Amino acid sequence: MSFASLTRRTLLQIALVGTLACPVMLPAIAQADPLPSWNEGKTKAAIVDFVMRTTAPGPDFVAVGDRIATFDNDGTLWSEQPLYFQLAFVLDRVKAMAKDHPEWKDTQPFKAVIEGDTKTLMAGGEKGIVELLAATSSGMSVEDFSASVVEWTKTARHPRFDKPYTELVFQPMLELLAYLRANDYQTFIVSGGGVEFMRPWTEGAYGIPPQQVVGSSGKTEFKLDGDTPSIQKLPAIEFVDDGPGKPVGINRFIGKRPVFAAGNSDGDLQMLQWTTLNSGPRFGMIIHHTDAKREWAYDRDSHIGKLDKALDEAPKRGWTVVDMKDDWKVIYPFEK
Amino acid sequence: MSFASLTRRTLLQIALVGTLACPVMLPAIAQADPLPSWNEGKTKAAIVDFVMRTTAPGPDFVAVGDRIATFDNDGTLWSEQPLYFQLAFVLDRVKAMAKDHPEWKDTQPFKAVIEGDTKTLMAGGEKGIVELLAATSSGMSVEDFSASVVEWTKTARHPRFDKPYTELVFQPMLELLAYLRANDYQTFIVSGGGVEFMRPWTEGAYGIPPQQVVGSSGKTEFKLDGDTPSIQKLPAIEFVDDGPGKPVGINRFIGKRPVFAAGNSDGDLQMLQWTTLNSGPRFGMIIHHTDAKREWAYDRDSHIGKLDKALDEAPKRGWTVVDMKDDWKVIYPFEK
Repeated sequence: MSFASLTRRTLLQIALVGTLACPVMLPAIAQADPLPSWNEGKTKAAIVDFVMRTTAPGPDFVAVGDRIATFDNDGTLWSEQPLYFQLAFVLDRVKAMAKDHPEWKDTQPFKAVIEGDTKTLMAGGEKGIVELLAATSSGMSVEDFSASVVEWTKTARHPRFDKPYTELVFQPMLELLAYLRANDYQTFIVSGGGVEFMRPWTEGAYGIPPQQVVGSSGKTEFKLDGDTPSIQKLPAIEFVDDGPGKPVGINRFIGKRPVFAAGNSDGDLQMLQWTTLNSGPRFGMIIHHTDAKREWAYDRDSHIGKLDKALDEAPKRGWTVVDMKDDWKVIYPFEK
Repeated sequence: MSFASLTRRTLLQIALVGTLACPVMLPAIAQADPLPSWNEGKTKAAIVDFVMRTTAPGPDFVAVGDRIATFDNDGTLWSEQPLYFQLAFVLDRVKAMAKDHPEWKDTQPFKAVIEGDTKTLMAGGEKGIVELLAATSSGMSVEDFSASVVEWTKTARHPRFDKPYTELVFQPMLELLAYLRANDYQTFIVSGGGVEFMRPWTEGAYGIPPQQVVGSSGKTEFKLDGDTPSIQKLPAIEFVDDGPGKPVGINRFIGKRPVFAAGNSDGDLQMLQWTTLNSGPRFGMIIHHTDAKREWAYDRDSHIGKLDKALDEAPKRGWTVVDMKDDWKVIYPFEK
């Protein structure tokens, strides 16, 4: 085929299809609202302003490879009430395994699980959960553990909404993640939750693949059984990715300092500091749970997702506090 | 502007530019050799065949997100003789710091460094290097450490070639990395070397960004000094990403099992097993250092990069052994 033989119509088709099928070639035309579930106001304006400033030529431009955005998970990307969802998973596992472990009746934190004593459990924080996780998953391969998580996401139901837990993700945050990625940001989860617990479902729920999930972890070891290799989970905590552990985890896994970070509790304080106390444009976001009707309202005195120091520090640091009740049109995708 | 007003020439230009500027739109036409520094033969044919099989529709097709390729660094992507290059860096640091540490004269492994006793150093393996690294970098922030690495890559010269160490990367492997990435593979380094030592220069040398570098690490801690946050290096080893540690590191950092892995020593044995002893198409590659003239020749009896068990296991596992002397037209980019 020579170009000389092409009709005007064919050339028009190639021009149109070639252009439209290739996002990088699109001219700067008015686009649909990238954040339709965010109410108009200063929060939404601040997000859009930041993304535009950091991606357009000018003093605040950030090179594509440096566009790193980190998100806490529990309470930031999905709900965390009345229990961290990972804790609900672990409780289901402990209960199922208790008949083979009579000693758990007298040993914390298992005793608290069996007795339904959530207050004692909560007091242990995310570290306590990781301990329970390690105990209930040791002796399993990571692949078998992953399969047990997938099974749980399909079968378990949240007590208040009677929905799979993975449907209780925040619609406005899904839009924010997509908006950032459309602007060449790489979106990472940096969570106190267990990394092996999150990875099986974060790609489906958030579009975040396993290698962009940073979390707490138990120790593992490689095993070769005949010609069958596996990675076995061991009953020991390796790393707690919470509080001051978050910047450490970011440094270890990502190796670059984020320019955007979002959290909802004091467990995210150091991640917000590490991200924003730096030169150049930076965005710190705190999700403030203010909507008792559609979700939950809690902050300073909560056992779960306590938000106290970070809320005090927000004005001084210029962090954007998202008021869930006022800023979000809908909370969950199923409300759309 | 309406399309009706466009001339045939303009449409032809749009069609051509729109198509050529957009790689995904390229029709399947004959392409230039993606591996020009590889001699024709069964090694090169096996690589091309694997990439074509796993990226074209058919039984061996691998989804884009699962195209994970992992590469050892020392001896696989760059040379490692007469000393691991990271060891050359550490020796330079130990010597520079020795005047402030008189006790090192009588303490191993520092004594060996000061006395130039490389055999004793080599016997300690990559773990010994990480120990020296931790000792010579503790009390520094990761950012200061990174700056010291960058400075070293600019000033230090390899004794044999009188070139910066970062120029002693393997040209055929640069082509392989680029070829895999052009086919939507994600390329990761999985090295026994220190992750903080590699990250400052891997993007420039290999096109591999920090978040795709997995390596050994020392412990770190987050510190907030007034309004200045930092991550400080501590004098303790956290993780040794070598031998059975490689599959553990892959699982922790990537969370997916690779389909392609390349190494050059017994330290890569378990990574090759973990990658290839699985269902579906898998590629295991061993770089065999056979070229005493252009690089170095060594394998079973070497202190550095000992290749013994993995070489024995290669035929049984179907791993491709690259014969550096026969398979590579050039070794380094500066020979082109």
